[in-house]
Amino acid sequence: MGNSLEIIVAKRAGFCFGVKRAVDLAFDAANKNSQKGDVRCCSVYTLGPIIHNPQVIEKLKSEGVEPTDDIDNPNIKTIIIRTHGVQQEISERLSQKGYEVIDATCPFVKKAQQYAKLLKEEGYQIVIIGDKGHPEVKGLMSYAGKDVIVVNKEDSLPSLKSRVGFIVQTTQPLDVLKKFISEAVEQVKELKVFNTICNSTALRLKETKDMTKDVDLMIVVGGKNSANTTQLTQLCNSVSIPAYHIETASEIREEWFSNVKKVGITAGASTPDWIISDVEKRIRDIGGRGL
Amino acid sequence: MGNSLEIIVAKRAGFCFGVKRAVDLAFDAANKNSQKGDVRCCSVYTLGPIIHNPQVIEKLKSEGVEPTDDIDNPNIKTIIIRTHGVQQEISERLSQKGYEVIDATCPFVKKAQQYAKLLKEEGYQIVIIGDKGHPEVKGLMSYAGKDVIVVNKEDSLPSLKSRVGFIVQTTQPLDVLKKFISEAVEQVKELKVFNTICNSTALRLKETKDMTKDVDLMIVVGGKNSANTTQLTQLCNSVSIPAYHIETASEIREEWFSNVKKVGITAGASTPDWIISDVEKRIRDIGGRGL
Repeated sequence: MGNSLEIIVAKRAGFCFGVKRAVDLAFDAANKNSQKGDVRCCSVYTLGPIIHNPQVIEKLKSEGVEPTDDIDNPNIKTIIIRTHGVQQEISERLSQKGYEVIDATCPFVKKAQQYAKLLKEEGYQIVIIGDKGHPEVKGLMSYAGKDVIVVNKEDSLPSLKSRVGFIVQTTQPLDVLKKFISEAVEQVKELKVFNTICNSTALRLKETKDMTKDVDLMIVVGGKNSANTTQLTQLCNSVSIPAYHIETASEIREEWFSNVKKVGITAGASTPDWIISDVEKRIRDIGGRGL
Repeated sequence: MGNSLEIIVAKRAGFCFGVKRAVDLAFDAANKNSQKGDVRCCSVYTLGPIIHNPQVIEKLKSEGVEPTDDIDNPNIKTIIIRTHGVQQEISERLSQKGYEVIDATCPFVKKAQQYAKLLKEEGYQIVIIGDKGHPEVKGLMSYAGKDVIVVNKEDSLPSLKSRVGFIVQTTQPLDVLKKFISEAVEQVKELKVFNTICNSTALRLKETKDMTKDVDLMIVVGGKNSANTTQLTQLCNSVSIPAYHIETASEIREEWFSNVKKVGITAGASTPDWIISDVEKRIRDIGGRGL
């Protein structure tokens, strides 16, 4: 049967603008640190994992950039704020500590934080659409103030005041925003919505959805802790396309490809190119051996 | 068969808050004028028909309050601005003329005008949802400025700028607002929505819809030029209930009621109680004669 397995890789698979910027900043910091010949092995830290991809974290560790959750860690000289941003009070404490702060917050998340602050100043009751446990949302919540309401797609809105402002976790689907503003307008007199959904997520979802019409199987590559990668897998399942969510090529099993003629590869915003290439190569090898 | 025809009158049929206020203001002005024994027969005018109900207009005429479209009419001493409001420039000209101006603009419409002005000052591209030819919408447009976009329920939104503000003709249905903000959020980054829909319209529509489940025929009473009355008739038709839109009891025909056991009466916001009572009486007479 030979090369009967056709492979399509999504054009938008992998690093988005904000992740690329953050990872570049982290590797630059590592590089700068090693050039300075700093005596301490681990003076550069990221506050939490810089992005939701364990393989990138490991690579950074090997170059001397460690994740930490302890902002009082005495070894810290330089601290990198990850793509998801941090709570306002943590940002303030990092400055007070006198660290060199490298802010790798995604510029789109930064904007959402500013909008949260603005809505608060303008006296709106604030609703954030997103996952309460996600670091990006925790950051947004801190700017929105203590009365903030957080809703996830399955939730219903509580009873709202008359002036309500909405912001959205950047990786949420547009339909969820639509659902909630439709619900809100039934209750409120004034609605201010900052559509802070990142285009890149929507376009990646759209491309993946289009791909599913054309393939027998989808391989979704990315951190198991990456929400947007998980979302891509859920999308495939929702249109009844078999899909496997993997972090690296080593997880791939040959039996997945029996009776498969065409396979699509997509990847989350935090998946580096080298992992996607490995996955593609591994599938090509399987296809080359005949199925 | 005797009294086999059951009649239900909608609780919310007839004058809404704004219309009642306007009509009261007009009759007060008429009354004040006749007490003063003013030499001129027609010194009190309404700018256009004060509400969309020909019978009320006739009654006011008989008490010396005439509608006029000519603001330069030399007989005018007192001018009444109707419920729908007027364009900003006309409001200014009336003041310059030195007339006594009685502003009977519905307070909810007035608020919508202020929101249009605010959105303009805040630099939003403004979309008004409503009927471009309706005096209320013409008034709102004047406050929103020359770049305003007006869309009616069948329309699609044009390509929008990144910051868009919405206001709504007070008598529009909520679903139309929902449709347009859902469409808008696909295109724009910031959306500010003043839900200026008047509750009274929505509640009247809801009550009428509920009534249709329970009756064989609907009689909708109100000016043929009244948009919200017409909307009530359309609602009945949309749920396949036979409905007649009449202005007065004299239009009722006995044959409408053959095979009808239960009839519902509803009326637009500009329909006076005395017309609704006449209609009810006339139908009761028909029912009393047996069908």
